[in-house]
Amino acid sequence: MKDQLRNWIKENQEESIRLLQKLVQLPSTQGKEKEVQDFVAIKLSDLGFDVDLWELDGKELKKHPYFYSSRETFEGSPNVVGVLKGSGKGRSIILNGHVDVVPAGDVKQWEHGPYSGNISDGKLYGRGSTDMKGGNAALMIAMEAIRSLDIQLKGDVIFQSVVEEESGGAGTLAAVLKGYTADAAIIPEPTNMKIFPKQQGSKWFRITVKGRTAHGGTRYLGVSAIDKSFQVVEHIKKLEKVRNDRIDDPLYDATPVPIPINIGKIEGGDWPSSVPDVVQLEGRIGIAPNESIEDAQQELEAWIEKLDETDEWFKESPVELDWFGARWVPGEIANDHPLMEALTNNYSNVLGGQPTVEASPWGTDGGLLTQVGNTPSVVFGPGVTSMAHFPNEYIELEKIFQAAEVIAGTIIDWCGVDK
Amino acid sequence: MKDQLRNWIKENQEESIRLLQKLVQLPSTQGKEKEVQDFVAIKLSDLGFDVDLWELDGKELKKHPYFYSSRETFEGSPNVVGVLKGSGKGRSIILNGHVDVVPAGDVKQWEHGPYSGNISDGKLYGRGSTDMKGGNAALMIAMEAIRSLDIQLKGDVIFQSVVEEESGGAGTLAAVLKGYTADAAIIPEPTNMKIFPKQQGSKWFRITVKGRTAHGGTRYLGVSAIDKSFQVVEHIKKLEKVRNDRIDDPLYDATPVPIPINIGKIEGGDWPSSVPDVVQLEGRIGIAPNESIEDAQQELEAWIEKLDETDEWFKESPVELDWFGARWVPGEIANDHPLMEALTNNYSNVLGGQPTVEASPWGTDGGLLTQVGNTPSVVFGPGVTSMAHFPNEYIELEKIFQAAEVIAGTIIDWCGVDK
Repeated sequence: MKDQLRNWIKENQEESIRLLQKLVQLPSTQGKEKEVQDFVAIKLSDLGFDVDLWELDGKELKKHPYFYSSRETFEGSPNVVGVLKGSGKGRSIILNGHVDVVPAGDVKQWEHGPYSGNISDGKLYGRGSTDMKGGNAALMIAMEAIRSLDIQLKGDVIFQSVVEEESGGAGTLAAVLKGYTADAAIIPEPTNMKIFPKQQGSKWFRITVKGRTAHGGTRYLGVSAIDKSFQVVEHIKKLEKVRNDRIDDPLYDATPVPIPINIGKIEGGDWPSSVPDVVQLEGRIGIAPNESIEDAQQELEAWIEKLDETDEWFKESPVELDWFGARWVPGEIANDHPLMEALTNNYSNVLGGQPTVEASPWGTDGGLLTQVGNTPSVVFGPGVTSMAHFPNEYIELEKIFQAAEVIAGTIIDWCGVDK
Repeated sequence: MKDQLRNWIKENQEESIRLLQKLVQLPSTQGKEKEVQDFVAIKLSDLGFDVDLWELDGKELKKHPYFYSSRETFEGSPNVVGVLKGSGKGRSIILNGHVDVVPAGDVKQWEHGPYSGNISDGKLYGRGSTDMKGGNAALMIAMEAIRSLDIQLKGDVIFQSVVEEESGGAGTLAAVLKGYTADAAIIPEPTNMKIFPKQQGSKWFRITVKGRTAHGGTRYLGVSAIDKSFQVVEHIKKLEKVRNDRIDDPLYDATPVPIPINIGKIEGGDWPSSVPDVVQLEGRIGIAPNESIEDAQQELEAWIEKLDETDEWFKESPVELDWFGARWVPGEIANDHPLMEALTNNYSNVLGGQPTVEASPWGTDGGLLTQVGNTPSVVFGPGVTSMAHFPNEYIELEKIFQAAEVIAGTIIDWCGVDK
């Protein structure tokens, strides 16, 4: 059956390339996803899926603590979920991919038009080719192969074609809240064919550090908020150590700091000759795959409160900690989960050798699937992250066919086949 | 003769108050100094001074390394210098005061109109009353008393009524460059009747600290410019100590840090989830009264170059040091200078007890007089600094009369009297 899949994929490469080309040629930046989603809906319907296409309900989603988006209404930005019921008694799987792409940026920096879908030297160019319409195409090719070969799966396949991944994950959140969950999920984000069973989450914070102003000529009469902010950063570094010392997953053995706390911005003071009385720090705290965002937040809050044990000044002038902006929910699947076994076996079968299994330092929609949808999620796909979001984004077509074959085989092994 | 001065000042208080009122009622923010300068010119002419009124030549001034201004043309902003020749063989003195005032700010915060010159409870209200038309009035009253009493001075009196003190000192610089220098100078800035024989100078600098960006989730792949900027600040603190350990003037015995280096601003990074690759620090370096700005600059430059001895990173990515914005030239007069003796004696004579002698933590135009005009300068005047630049600025009239009497006596003792 695996040989049949391989042959089908090989024989239908031309058509598969046209499919990806079409996906790339339908620009789908935030707010403009309708056309590509209509196309996906028809494609899924043709493959026999029951298709649900709906616009996200911002008012309703806003009630959920994990909702985050730069917008509150989603007109013209539908989600698409296709359900292919199995014959029964099989394990269900979610195939999740986002259709939203980041803007093309300065078009002059593109050699090929950002929505051209031009092919050159085995690479297909265009915004979203890597992130992640190439992965989406691999999912579709896998399902088309299975359907064309009349392979009857036992478990259900839930194909989630979502919006808003680039802006906070509201698309996947909406799909999960609508009940589209499963026994496990595959997300073909660009991992360069590595397997990521853990995805680090993160949350942004802002810390306001106070000082007391004075004229720079008598700076000793003031208290520098810059000096105090240095102490705050040192204090936070100690928490980073405490949090990382706890991590014992062997997957992180080679990672110097599995879940870093990063201070990304600093700003304070308004005059070279004055002692600065306020400094703001902005950063992100990495959240472990098996940790909730809330627990991580509480730990940082409690740690910051202990600042006054390090310096009386913080008793008098406590720092303020605010949570703001985006958050990425951590995602995971157990290292020895049967889906991992299926994926690894099929990888070896298709590509030879053992796959690289790593933890990703960034979150994906897999976090929402894992933590809100209770669906263990693994990330595996064609394309390399360094291509994503840059001009001249492209994807190697060969990798898409390989990924499609690995995923098709995994689906068969996981969902089971009704002979 | 001192009793005569006292009596004259006492008997002419009403007229003296009207003089100050007039000075305050002629608003003279930057660019609008002409009216008050015309008034001063007439006043000096009436007192027998040879008056020179001229507009500053921005093109010419720009060539001087100590020129600093927010503008390059000075139309409508004349300087006034009056020279009263002595009978000969006496020491000459500069009486220096600026007529430019800072803007009134939010007029609603003023109880009395900012240019009303209203008098209430012995205080005269208005922008510039303290900084420093009150001091200028004291100078004029002193000279009017001397002239009215037909006291013939041996030394010359050079009355400098200058613009631009609040914006970099171009007025005093222009007067000095035109040749108006003397054996010593008195500047009646608001010192609350303290005597400041040393005035700290300062210069602004900007330091650009580099890092290497990376995703916050793999922050260990980058180098945080925030962390590096902390090292730079610590390094600069060591220089501050080296520079201050050198200061042995007993006037600074009670000052924790005579010439502080202040880091007043910090800004860097542009995204909470990214390792920041650039941080900018802005600060001011205090310059000792007997030090040149250039020497202080060179010392900081050399010190910053030594950063690479503390951390290899700075060898690879040296910080950039720029000098920008304003500079205040340090000023001084020797603690045992005969003008100090004359001023101290006259203070005791008029007010009883010993004056407070301190070093000021901020610069005045006395720095330009000292270093460019080679004229030792002392600052002594009515009014308190905490009034300056704020709404409801006022000055106690009694202090003006006391200052006028101290200064008149000092002029007589210093310049000598031809019997």
